[in-house]
Amino acid sequence: MTHLELWIPGPTEVSAPVLAAAASPAIGHRTKEMCALYDALVPGCREMFGCERGVVLFGTHSATGFMEAFTRNGIARRALHIVNGAFAERWKLISDACEKSNAVLEIPWGRAATPQELDAFLDRDRDFDAVALVHNETSTGALAPLEQLAAVVRRRLPDAMLLVDAVTSAAATPIRFDDWGLDGVFTGSQKALALPPGLALAAVSKRLLEKAQALPGRGYYFDLVDLAKNGAKSQTPTTPALPQLNALKVQLERIAASGGFAARYARHAALAARTRAYCEERGFPSFTAPEFLSPTVACRENGGLDVAAWVKGLRAKGYLMSEGYGDLKARTFRIGHMGDHELAGLERLLAASDAVLRDLGWKR
Amino acid sequence: MTHLELWIPGPTEVSAPVLAAAASPAIGHRTKEMCALYDALVPGCREMFGCERGVVLFGTHSATGFMEAFTRNGIARRALHIVNGAFAERWKLISDACEKSNAVLEIPWGRAATPQELDAFLDRDRDFDAVALVHNETSTGALAPLEQLAAVVRRRLPDAMLLVDAVTSAAATPIRFDDWGLDGVFTGSQKALALPPGLALAAVSKRLLEKAQALPGRGYYFDLVDLAKNGAKSQTPTTPALPQLNALKVQLERIAASGGFAARYARHAALAARTRAYCEERGFPSFTAPEFLSPTVACRENGGLDVAAWVKGLRAKGYLMSEGYGDLKARTFRIGHMGDHELAGLERLLAASDAVLRDLGWKR
Repeated sequence: MTHLELWIPGPTEVSAPVLAAAASPAIGHRTKEMCALYDALVPGCREMFGCERGVVLFGTHSATGFMEAFTRNGIARRALHIVNGAFAERWKLISDACEKSNAVLEIPWGRAATPQELDAFLDRDRDFDAVALVHNETSTGALAPLEQLAAVVRRRLPDAMLLVDAVTSAAATPIRFDDWGLDGVFTGSQKALALPPGLALAAVSKRLLEKAQALPGRGYYFDLVDLAKNGAKSQTPTTPALPQLNALKVQLERIAASGGFAARYARHAALAARTRAYCEERGFPSFTAPEFLSPTVACRENGGLDVAAWVKGLRAKGYLMSEGYGDLKARTFRIGHMGDHELAGLERLLAASDAVLRDLGWKR
Repeated sequence: MTHLELWIPGPTEVSAPVLAAAASPAIGHRTKEMCALYDALVPGCREMFGCERGVVLFGTHSATGFMEAFTRNGIARRALHIVNGAFAERWKLISDACEKSNAVLEIPWGRAATPQELDAFLDRDRDFDAVALVHNETSTGALAPLEQLAAVVRRRLPDAMLLVDAVTSAAATPIRFDDWGLDGVFTGSQKALALPPGLALAAVSKRLLEKAQALPGRGYYFDLVDLAKNGAKSQTPTTPALPQLNALKVQLERIAASGGFAARYARHAALAARTRAYCEERGFPSFTAPEFLSPTVACRENGGLDVAAWVKGLRAKGYLMSEGYGDLKARTFRIGHMGDHELAGLERLLAASDAVLRDLGWKR
C-alpha cells in the first residue's frame, strides 16, 4: 500500500527521524531512564503552552481524554460551554455524559465567540464555576480570539476555571497560559506537533488541582491530582505510551534546532496564507468568517465542485485531503496544513490539486 | 545509553520487526486503510480471548483504562471485588473513585481466591450485579483459577457481570471468554503480547453493552457502547494509537507464523518452570502459594539476599529486574518472563544472575 501524504486536520505527516524515535526499545516505566525522558519533555511543553507557573501533564490517551479530565476535575457546579463547532459540541456532550450541569453559548459554525458576545452572555447568566472553549475549531477552521475571551472570563468570573481545547492550535500559534490566566489547556500529539497519535499533553493551574482534590466522582484514569502527583516524580500513574514520548523528545529537539516555536508559528502562518490565496484564486470561498481564520485548517466552500470526486482524484495522486465535517461533508472541504509541512510540499499538493481540478473540468 | 533487557513484569522486550512496525507512517483514521488495519487485528484478538460471541475492543489508553471502563459500564448497583494484590486493590479503588458501591473478598497476597472461598463468601452476601477479579496478579505472581471461579459466579449470580483483568495472563495462558461465561476481559499491549505500551485490548459481552446503555455517568472516553458502535464500523471514536495498532498487526502475524497462541502458552510455561527451578536451586522460596504459580511473573522471597544490590548488579550487566511491589519491595523480587522471551535468553539472564550472586557472596 503506497503511503498517502496527509493534508487532513490530523493525523498529520510524521518525519522519518520522529518515526524512528517511536521505534526506540522499551524501557522500564519506574526507572531513572523514564524520569530522564520525562524531564527532557517538560521544558519544551512549558514553552509551547506559555506555562511556567502551572503543571505540565502527559496523558496516555487521545486529546479527548483531557476534555473529560477537565470536565471531571474542573467543574463542580455548572459550566459554560462555548459551542461553535463539532469539537466544542463534543466537549459539551462529555459534560452531559459526566452529569455536569452546563449552559451553552451557541455561536454559528464558521465563527468563534467574540469578547462582546461572551460579555453580553455573562450579563444574562454568570452562575458558572468553569468555562470551556475550543481555541481552534478543527471542524470549521475557526480560531477563537483566546486572549480577549480569557480577559472577559478573568474579569467577569475570576474564580471560574478557564479550560481550553488547543488541539489544533498548540505548536502552531502562541498560547500564553500564565499571561492569559488559563486554568487548563490541552492538545494531542498528532496535530501541529507532528507526532504519531496516542499521546495527549496538557498544562493545568495549581488552583485547578486544588479544586479537583475536593471533587467526587472524578475517577482514576482522569484524576489530574494523581497525574500531577506522579508527574512531580517524573513518572505517570500507569505505563505511558513510550513510542509517542520518545517521538516527542526528538521532535522538541528538532523544533529547538530549527528556530524554536516562533519559527513554527511563522511557518504555519505562511502555509495558511498560501492555502487561502490558492482557494481564493480557484473560486472556493472561505466557510470560516474572515476574522477567525485558522493557522492549521482551511475550511472552504465547494463553490459547486464535487468535493468527493476531488478528494478521490487527489488520493489517486498520493495525497489525502478531507471532506467537510459531519453535515458539512459535501458543502465544504478541509485542508490541514500543520505539523512539519513546508511551503514546498504545499506547492506540490496544490499542483496536484490543479491537475485534478482540470480533470474534473473546473474552469476557475 | 545502552539498552537494558527487560525482565520485569512489563513493559517487556519488543522485537525489532514489531518496533519497526510501530514506526509505520501515519494514516488517516477515517479511511479505508484504517478499517483494513482494524479488521486485520480482530481475529487474532478473538483467538487470544477465546471470544467469538462477544465484541473485541481497542482502547487508546493503558490497561487501567479498561478497569475504569468496566466499572463505569458494568456496575449498576454494587460490585464484589476479589482483592489479592496491588492491581486487584487498584480496581477496587477505581470503583470507589467512580462512586460505585462495592464489597471486598479479601485474599492474602500471594494467593488467589479458590472456588470454595468465593462460594462461601456468596453464602453470606450475594447482593452484587458485578464481580471484578484479576486473572494473574502482577504484584504477587498469583494466577487465579479463572475457569472455576467463573463457574461459581455463573451458578450463584447468573445475571452479574463477570469482569476480568487479564493484563499479565492474556497471550500467555488460555482464556475462554465464551466458554467460561465472562462479560468483560482486558489486557495491555506491553505484557505477554510484547508490544510497546499505550494500547489496551478487551472483549465484552453483548449483555454488558446492553446494561451499559442504561447506566448514567459513564462518561465519554470510557463509554463502551460508543467504542463498540465505532468498532462495528472498524474505527474508533477518537484518533487511535496507530504505532501500537501497526505493531499489533505484525505481532499477530508473527504469532500465527510461529505455532499460534498454543505455542506461546507452552513457551511461557517452559519459561516459568525454568525460572522456578533456578530460584529453588539458589534458595529463593516462592512468595506465591504453589497452587497459584503464574506463567508470566515469578515472585520470590529474598531468602536473606539484598534484593536492591542484586538488581543493581544485574543492571550493570544490562538486565532490568524488578524489586517486589510496594510493601514487598525488599522482601521479594520479581522476574517477568513474558512476551517474546525464549529459553536461551532466560539462560543468559540466569548466568548473569549467578555472576552477580557470586559477587555478592551468595553461597547457595
